[in-house]
Amino acid sequence: MKPISSRDNPLFKELKLLATSSQARRKAGRTLLDGVHLCEAYLQHLGLPPMCIVSESASVHPEVVPLLMQCEAGRVQCIVLPEALYQAVSQVEHGIGLMFVIDTPAIEVPATLTGSAVLLDNLQDPGNLGSILRSAAAAGIEYVFCSPGTAFAWSPKVLRAGMGAHFLLKIIENTDLAAVIRNASVTVLATSSYAQERVYDVDLTQPVAWLFGHEGQGVADELLELATHRVAIPHLGAMESLNVAACAAVCFFEQVRQREAGSAKSQRHLLG
Amino acid sequence: MKPISSRDNPLFKELKLLATSSQARRKAGRTLLDGVHLCEAYLQHLGLPPMCIVSESASVHPEVVPLLMQCEAGRVQCIVLPEALYQAVSQVEHGIGLMFVIDTPAIEVPATLTGSAVLLDNLQDPGNLGSILRSAAAAGIEYVFCSPGTAFAWSPKVLRAGMGAHFLLKIIENTDLAAVIRNASVTVLATSSYAQERVYDVDLTQPVAWLFGHEGQGVADELLELATHRVAIPHLGAMESLNVAACAAVCFFEQVRQREAGSAKSQRHLLG
Repeated sequence: MKPISSRDNPLFKELKLLATSSQARRKAGRTLLDGVHLCEAYLQHLGLPPMCIVSESASVHPEVVPLLMQCEAGRVQCIVLPEALYQAVSQVEHGIGLMFVIDTPAIEVPATLTGSAVLLDNLQDPGNLGSILRSAAAAGIEYVFCSPGTAFAWSPKVLRAGMGAHFLLKIIENTDLAAVIRNASVTVLATSSYAQERVYDVDLTQPVAWLFGHEGQGVADELLELATHRVAIPHLGAMESLNVAACAAVCFFEQVRQREAGSAKSQRHLLG
Repeated sequence: MKPISSRDNPLFKELKLLATSSQARRKAGRTLLDGVHLCEAYLQHLGLPPMCIVSESASVHPEVVPLLMQCEAGRVQCIVLPEALYQAVSQVEHGIGLMFVIDTPAIEVPATLTGSAVLLDNLQDPGNLGSILRSAAAAGIEYVFCSPGTAFAWSPKVLRAGMGAHFLLKIIENTDLAAVIRNASVTVLATSSYAQERVYDVDLTQPVAWLFGHEGQGVADELLELATHRVAIPHLGAMESLNVAACAAVCFFEQVRQREAGSAKSQRHLLG
């Protein structure tokens, strides 16, 4: 393990830039995973990272030691920082000081969308984006396409809210969603509070692509028109709308419910 | 309208305290509604507030003028602040400068819980709490009970995320949830990722109480044991769990789906 103790160290400066600048993260194609849970999930799903950063106190923490040993055995570059320097690159308060530097995965864009997917049009809030990724991964969705105006999926806030979902999904950013929809061989469902059709009345037993929009303005009109269905979640009471991440969870798990009900039916059929 | 231009004005000091101190809000039994949307929702559902605060520039804004006129016609105390002073009490960036001071509603605790409800055990995140309130109101749920460790429901962050849900629900804070469960005549469903029973397999056509817990630790064991059912949302893929607000939305709208399907069935029955 290599100690760094000066704020003038070029590697430290690079880390600080990655920690604080979304532009620097996009340019470098790299980001920081902050905290034991995210680092564990990365090791479990994607293997060893290019670099591991640990605070002095965390380097002897019982939850961190086995992860550090795994990194060192795999010849990962490991850096130890004094607490003050670690805090300057970490956004987690009161956490255990462990961080991975990782390359944001480069995903090949499929020519035709044939699997289940989420399309995000101009979604703003990092917490909402992270929650949607987490729900999508839990519902077994494969692809996430983000429009150019959508929050950066690999920012520390979105990674924290995603709780490791990033490593289970194929996330494609800066995408022309209209082109994805035109080239999709699956049904595309746009949620809109003005829609007449209820999400419960659509057959979701086959893969579909879900389209969600901006927190205030919803899905852009030109994308709404391209979608196969415009669907609403029925509301009781006088609330106008749901939070977009809550809306996405309802849609994804209505699909899970229908798929499980469908497979239960075919099992009964086979047995009967 | 009364202008205030000094930071030493006692009323301004009181507003600043309400804006920045959760303890002050609890003690005064008052809070601030920040932004046109929340103020409109308050007027619509609960009527006139005790006090209205507007920034100089907002006092002539076309969205604000009709609300101000409604307040002045109802003899509500209206205060105008210069931009710098307004910004010192507002947490909304780039918003239109309108705020209501309101009394947090005092809700009578029912001796026996007979209606649909949400019980929140030690829920930490204001964004999650606001999203749960919004989903609950949209699903037609009546009561929300919060344990002493749960985030303060009437804080500006929770109010913003709630988007007016606060005015449609009966929110009771600092509650002994064990006592509420013991005195409930409705089914109490606790969500737990370890549960065997699926939420889809429970009859939700009657009112139920939903119990959700801390973001990391879930529902406390002693409350889990008191619940009528422990239920899980089935997951596909390798994600451990959902965000608690996403989980709540899935549960609430599974209930809406079952109730609508139930009433459709009885309608068919009546027609047939």
